[in-house]
Amino acid sequence: MKKSILNSILLILALSFVSCGVKHSQKAPSELSNINYGSSRPVAQKNVLKLTANPIPTVRIGFIGVGNRGGSAVRRYTFMKGVEIVALCDLNGSSVTKSQDVLKSKGLSAATEYVGENTWKEVCERDDIDLVYICTDWGTHVPMAVYAMEQGKHVAIEVPAATSVDECWQLVDTAEKTRKHCTILENCCYDFFELNTLNMAQNGLFGELVHAEGAYIHDLRTQFKSNGWRIKYYEEYTGNPYPTHGFGPICQSMNIHRGDKMNYLVSVSSNQFGITNYLKDTFGEDSSEAKRLYKLGDMNTTIIKTEKGKTMIVQHDVTSPRPYSRLHTLSGTKGFAQKYPDPKIALEPNSHEFLSEEEFNKLMKEYEHPFIKEIGEYAKSVGGHGGMDFIMDYRLIYCLRNGLPLDIDVYDAAEWSCLFELTELSASNGGMPIRIPDFTRGDWNQLNGLKFAE
Amino acid sequence: MKKSILNSILLILALSFVSCGVKHSQKAPSELSNINYGSSRPVAQKNVLKLTANPIPTVRIGFIGVGNRGGSAVRRYTFMKGVEIVALCDLNGSSVTKSQDVLKSKGLSAATEYVGENTWKEVCERDDIDLVYICTDWGTHVPMAVYAMEQGKHVAIEVPAATSVDECWQLVDTAEKTRKHCTILENCCYDFFELNTLNMAQNGLFGELVHAEGAYIHDLRTQFKSNGWRIKYYEEYTGNPYPTHGFGPICQSMNIHRGDKMNYLVSVSSNQFGITNYLKDTFGEDSSEAKRLYKLGDMNTTIIKTEKGKTMIVQHDVTSPRPYSRLHTLSGTKGFAQKYPDPKIALEPNSHEFLSEEEFNKLMKEYEHPFIKEIGEYAKSVGGHGGMDFIMDYRLIYCLRNGLPLDIDVYDAAEWSCLFELTELSASNGGMPIRIPDFTRGDWNQLNGLKFAE
Repeated sequence: MKKSILNSILLILALSFVSCGVKHSQKAPSELSNINYGSSRPVAQKNVLKLTANPIPTVRIGFIGVGNRGGSAVRRYTFMKGVEIVALCDLNGSSVTKSQDVLKSKGLSAATEYVGENTWKEVCERDDIDLVYICTDWGTHVPMAVYAMEQGKHVAIEVPAATSVDECWQLVDTAEKTRKHCTILENCCYDFFELNTLNMAQNGLFGELVHAEGAYIHDLRTQFKSNGWRIKYYEEYTGNPYPTHGFGPICQSMNIHRGDKMNYLVSVSSNQFGITNYLKDTFGEDSSEAKRLYKLGDMNTTIIKTEKGKTMIVQHDVTSPRPYSRLHTLSGTKGFAQKYPDPKIALEPNSHEFLSEEEFNKLMKEYEHPFIKEIGEYAKSVGGHGGMDFIMDYRLIYCLRNGLPLDIDVYDAAEWSCLFELTELSASNGGMPIRIPDFTRGDWNQLNGLKFAE
Repeated sequence: MKKSILNSILLILALSFVSCGVKHSQKAPSELSNINYGSSRPVAQKNVLKLTANPIPTVRIGFIGVGNRGGSAVRRYTFMKGVEIVALCDLNGSSVTKSQDVLKSKGLSAATEYVGENTWKEVCERDDIDLVYICTDWGTHVPMAVYAMEQGKHVAIEVPAATSVDECWQLVDTAEKTRKHCTILENCCYDFFELNTLNMAQNGLFGELVHAEGAYIHDLRTQFKSNGWRIKYYEEYTGNPYPTHGFGPICQSMNIHRGDKMNYLVSVSSNQFGITNYLKDTFGEDSSEAKRLYKLGDMNTTIIKTEKGKTMIVQHDVTSPRPYSRLHTLSGTKGFAQKYPDPKIALEPNSHEFLSEEEFNKLMKEYEHPFIKEIGEYAKSVGGHGGMDFIMDYRLIYCLRNGLPLDIDVYDAAEWSCLFELTELSASNGGMPIRIPDFTRGDWNQLNGLKFAE
């Protein structure tokens, strides 16, 4: 028996390393040992599933990073009850000034301004802040979040929350040690179709979900005209660096770490054609822009298999001329839903045809998610990706004010973000299967499905 | 159950070892697995790229297997000029009689009838037959095709042409030795959207194609009420046993073995939920039907990477309640097309929006494929999956009558069919990457794109 197990292992190893026969250079296997699968949890440390904290009647917020996404967040929070914007921090003084002006225009008290390299630490160190809201570049999320939690603050982090498995563990361990909330600002979990189909899934309309698909297909080629921090990632990285918009919502529907867990993934990237083609067309064949080298493939596809035998697909393409899509496909034993290119649902016993527009609208009304009923119309009027951003903000603040568990916990943040490193590892090694860490350290089956606090 | 637990343990062990990077010994893949990567081509044997044969003014056909698909084929061929239906062969006498009646009703000469186990050999051995048309169960395609070619006949084989890599090599080697045509009856290559978008791709409308997706998503659960030969496969097989409908057309657009070649694949199957759920609902929880075990997962997803750095996805799901889909997604540096759920195209410089219905129809007219112009309307009137079946028949007979290379050659048949075994191997081993054989033995770059003979 022992020998046959060893033989099987050798066979599989050999298949992976030898028979994939990729021509680009593969990392030596020894480098793969860098994946951090986590040590056992210290005895004094407990999981933060359903973590609650004392109710915070007025949530005092420090924003770190108030440029693009952060600036929009500050604007939205001026519409929020029960909050106080205490600090605005950015490397760039003009971004801080702009956000300060927004507060002023709404008749709100001025926030303290923090401008410069290490001023974010001062924000974290204040004793009159409850929540640190982090909208900086990807690489700085984790050090800031960890420091903020260590200073006793709850944290909300833009997507992706982390760029490596190690960083994911840092978030998990710090949250468990400090008993502070650490959430990821995954707005797409709060989009209308996603919430309504989640409600349908939770009510059994699709039967048992077997397969789901998400994506971030968003033509961002114009961003390549400049060469900002995000573009710099694309020079040295291939895989799926931005998985969470499409992935978060399907993980919620599939009850990941609430009765199921992700076991392994395989990930394959195409080479890069789109960016160079675009830059040649835009700046000319011989321009310096057209000669820049990007490692990021146009299309990355990742397949994930779960402990319960379900599959998920997540795609990433920001460099092809295609209409926007997050796919959001849910396939179960009783029905099927997909959001893109047009929202469609098919249900037993007539699952071979999609619902008519009338039936579809009726169903969407019938299963309208409670969050949408409660705040949907107001959220639309506030704006921010059609309203979903404000529903996200609203829920975060609602839960903090009422001492409730957050909708999205640190394990979600880690599970969704760990794809950053793991897809690259697989894609750079000929699609080699990579085991996915269990950030709950065995507690993935303690909760019976996702239930939002009320 | 015990076996599956052991398999899981092996898989997990193997994956941990892979991820942890245990050192491995360098051995050739053939020593470590049963995959046949082909020996070098015998000196006297040449490739059959662009193979031509003497023109055959009247193509005399022997049909082996005239039940479901074969019976439909016989009916269609009664509408074809320049053919003579010489032989009808089946295990089942009543199928032969039915087809004979079809001939009679069209005022055609009676064909010789062959009923019983080994009578197909007699068909192959006749000296007044040019083409053997094989529509039997999957497992008998290759022995029949090989024998027919050895008897000097051209062969056309239903999908999948073969069920193993070994069988694929048998087709290739026999075709190369005998210089006989060996084609796969992939009707979906002749469907209207597929042909028109192929024409667009070949005219550069999508720029360089980077990524493509195909599928066979077709709810066949009612077939599980009985337990025929196809269902028996599902008891012992997981992977993608029926890849070609979605895969053939995208391989054509991607110029596989005509300037590019498939290097490796990864394949992941979900577990099986749909069939058991359906049989429980249909026959009752305790019925013998509900207790049958099926290995076939509901959803199989396979990713393929090519030599030129392109990616392709192919899916298989015949046991979920979903509307029919073959996906047929083409994504290039200048445009995008997808067939399901609704045919849509987006093109630069307005690629963020799909074409309006009017623009779409205009484009489809402008790029209407020559085959459709020539025979499309007539094919629709004949019927057979909306006309595509007859366009396929028409092209096969046209090329044979004119001594032209066939549209679909034996390498296509092998490349599309080898997924049967390779997806199972990958899916049964945790998504391990599997190198894909080069059935052209290095000649994949001799042709510069797919060009149909005129």
